[in-house]
Amino acid sequence: MPAERFSVGLLGMGTVGSAFALLLEERAAEIERFNGRRPEISGVLTRTRGSFEEVLAGADLLVELIGGIEPAREYLLSAIRAGKDVVTANKQLLSQHGEELFETAREHAVRLRFEAAVAGAVPVVRVLEESLSATPIERIHGIVNGTTNFILTEMTRGSTYAEALAEAQRVGYAEADPSDDVSGRDAAAKMAILARLAFGCPVHLDDVRFEGIEQLHGDDLEYARELGLGLKLVGTAERCPGGLSVHVHPTFLYSGHPLASVSGPFNAVTVESETITELTMSGPGAGGRQTASAVLGDVVSVMTGGARPPAPPLPLGLVEDVQSAYYLHLDVADRPGVLASVTKVLGEHDVSIKSVVQRGMGEHARLVMVTHPVLDSRLRDAVRRLDEFDFVRSTPRTIRVIEEEFG
Amino acid sequence: MPAERFSVGLLGMGTVGSAFALLLEERAAEIERFNGRRPEISGVLTRTRGSFEEVLAGADLLVELIGGIEPAREYLLSAIRAGKDVVTANKQLLSQHGEELFETAREHAVRLRFEAAVAGAVPVVRVLEESLSATPIERIHGIVNGTTNFILTEMTRGSTYAEALAEAQRVGYAEADPSDDVSGRDAAAKMAILARLAFGCPVHLDDVRFEGIEQLHGDDLEYARELGLGLKLVGTAERCPGGLSVHVHPTFLYSGHPLASVSGPFNAVTVESETITELTMSGPGAGGRQTASAVLGDVVSVMTGGARPPAPPLPLGLVEDVQSAYYLHLDVADRPGVLASVTKVLGEHDVSIKSVVQRGMGEHARLVMVTHPVLDSRLRDAVRRLDEFDFVRSTPRTIRVIEEEFG
Repeated sequence: MPAERFSVGLLGMGTVGSAFALLLEERAAEIERFNGRRPEISGVLTRTRGSFEEVLAGADLLVELIGGIEPAREYLLSAIRAGKDVVTANKQLLSQHGEELFETAREHAVRLRFEAAVAGAVPVVRVLEESLSATPIERIHGIVNGTTNFILTEMTRGSTYAEALAEAQRVGYAEADPSDDVSGRDAAAKMAILARLAFGCPVHLDDVRFEGIEQLHGDDLEYARELGLGLKLVGTAERCPGGLSVHVHPTFLYSGHPLASVSGPFNAVTVESETITELTMSGPGAGGRQTASAVLGDVVSVMTGGARPPAPPLPLGLVEDVQSAYYLHLDVADRPGVLASVTKVLGEHDVSIKSVVQRGMGEHARLVMVTHPVLDSRLRDAVRRLDEFDFVRSTPRTIRVIEEEFG
Repeated sequence: MPAERFSVGLLGMGTVGSAFALLLEERAAEIERFNGRRPEISGVLTRTRGSFEEVLAGADLLVELIGGIEPAREYLLSAIRAGKDVVTANKQLLSQHGEELFETAREHAVRLRFEAAVAGAVPVVRVLEESLSATPIERIHGIVNGTTNFILTEMTRGSTYAEALAEAQRVGYAEADPSDDVSGRDAAAKMAILARLAFGCPVHLDDVRFEGIEQLHGDDLEYARELGLGLKLVGTAERCPGGLSVHVHPTFLYSGHPLASVSGPFNAVTVESETITELTMSGPGAGGRQTASAVLGDVVSVMTGGARPPAPPLPLGLVEDVQSAYYLHLDVADRPGVLASVTKVLGEHDVSIKSVVQRGMGEHARLVMVTHPVLDSRLRDAVRRLDEFDFVRSTPRTIRVIEEEFG
């Protein structure tokens, strides 16, 4: 007796789409063994062939791997309205039209799965949705862009930014136009999705402040090493007075932080909560076959009933101005009274210094400070004032710091 | 209109049971919000009060937190036969009577969840069951006992074994009788459960070879540091020629290994597969509230339908004799010809040396070697032969090594 079939319609046959079709074929027998039904691709739509209506009609579930906003959005909405479960890896779409998709899925009692949209093969979406539903989450830190983590790892080993980027492009970790990655925008989209899952609050990509790695100096990495800190592009989503804050910035991490040792193209996410203290997941963040395995995991979830429509939103205030500790780097003239003037301005802006190193070099000196946590706006104002001093030789540089909690 | 209720019968009111009851009350409203039903404790059975039959009759789902084999086994089987879903944190029971429970659950189409039985709040059970069903797993390495990891961390910082154990007992990470933890037996039970999930193969606690940390010397930790290796109690389950191997041993890890930086009472599990390369999850391994949150996560899974009966077994051959690289430590007399004799014996047993350090200290010398991968039995035979030499001053010590794959 032939096994009952589970028909998967596939939109998109690029790197991930092809890897998914292959993996599904490889794993079909094993999935059938514990599932009773055998998954198979029942139709494919690419730019040049296939009809969306036919693929939809023949499918129990639709997998969207086209990417971008349109026509992916229209296809997903049509499938959901037709009562079909859907799986997507589309972070751009989810971070900009997530609520529309979630609401439509709820209305039609349809499952919408998107493990592959964040952190590749690392099952952070599933864990946030399911395991942690019993736990109030306080904070998420994530390295959710493998391209920039690869570049930073190479820079830590001595490459310049340009060299590291070229190497990333050579080995296939960065695209010809890397701007979405290096600007922090890709990480911001993923943090918007994670924040929605962890806190129930709708977060649009436009709500996420982000800063990339293009402006980093080799110097900053050197100082990080001296201070015993690692430099990563870190996305943060956290409860704070007034609601929720979501942002992406280059960040110094103390060496014991679970994200500090994540290197190369890997992704990792740390979830903090009073109940579980701290949970970290890490693994490959990209790659066709890794992403395909996350997509297939979603398909299996739907087949086994281990998925439900998205939960309704729980809006929180989105807060822009949050507290962080900062590393502050000043190039100054080596004159008497400079340190006193600097600390006076900082004090007037509630910036309290935790540690400071001054290095004289003839007429030039460098002041490197780590501050106690301070509101971003206060620090920015202080830096603006400092920049007005004639003894400050170049625009002060600031980088967020995550320190050991009781360090 | 009062919300529909989801009745949870609770067996056991120890540390985890009490924490679970409290957490369930705290989270009931939030769970109801996205679930429609409000979970509540409908009955409790302790050693001194309550009737099992009454607790069972009033429950939609039964949570077993008694521990040990009987009466936990009989209670769970009765509940399953009565068609009730069950959640347990009982690693002893699952590692010795897992197949009986799984099979009964399959027969009665009942869900049996046990996230809290392995690695506390780290959702490794869920991830193995669900995300990785699309991926053929090659190997799992786990630090799955927080007590021994805490003790080893303290020893790395200079404590003796006795001091570290006393400290673990003082802060509540070790019990008055720590033998289950320090002997490796607790870790072996957890690895048996993980192996069943990852490979589908029934593994009984008795099938798992294990070795604890009581025999470690301060010296071994010192050598580890010199070699740039970390010393952990590592459980391994891996495919190998002939089937599956599951074992727990003190193990040296190269510093870049994802488990090398796991310190204190934390647990971590690394899953290796061709498809996803390597996925690591880490977090607190124990603690009443952490374990309770894993139990509550299982309850929520059952409430939302995100769980299915256990998959049928897929027996593999269980292989005892597997290949590992080894650290080999010999105290020898400092005489000409010693190294030649040693290497001759090793060569005769197919033990190939990767690196060797010899240190003379007057009449005594130490030979510290790292071997290439070799069958356990061959290494044991070689060590037995070496121990017969009169120039070997004390029984040779061996510790497994996990090195960088292409190091």
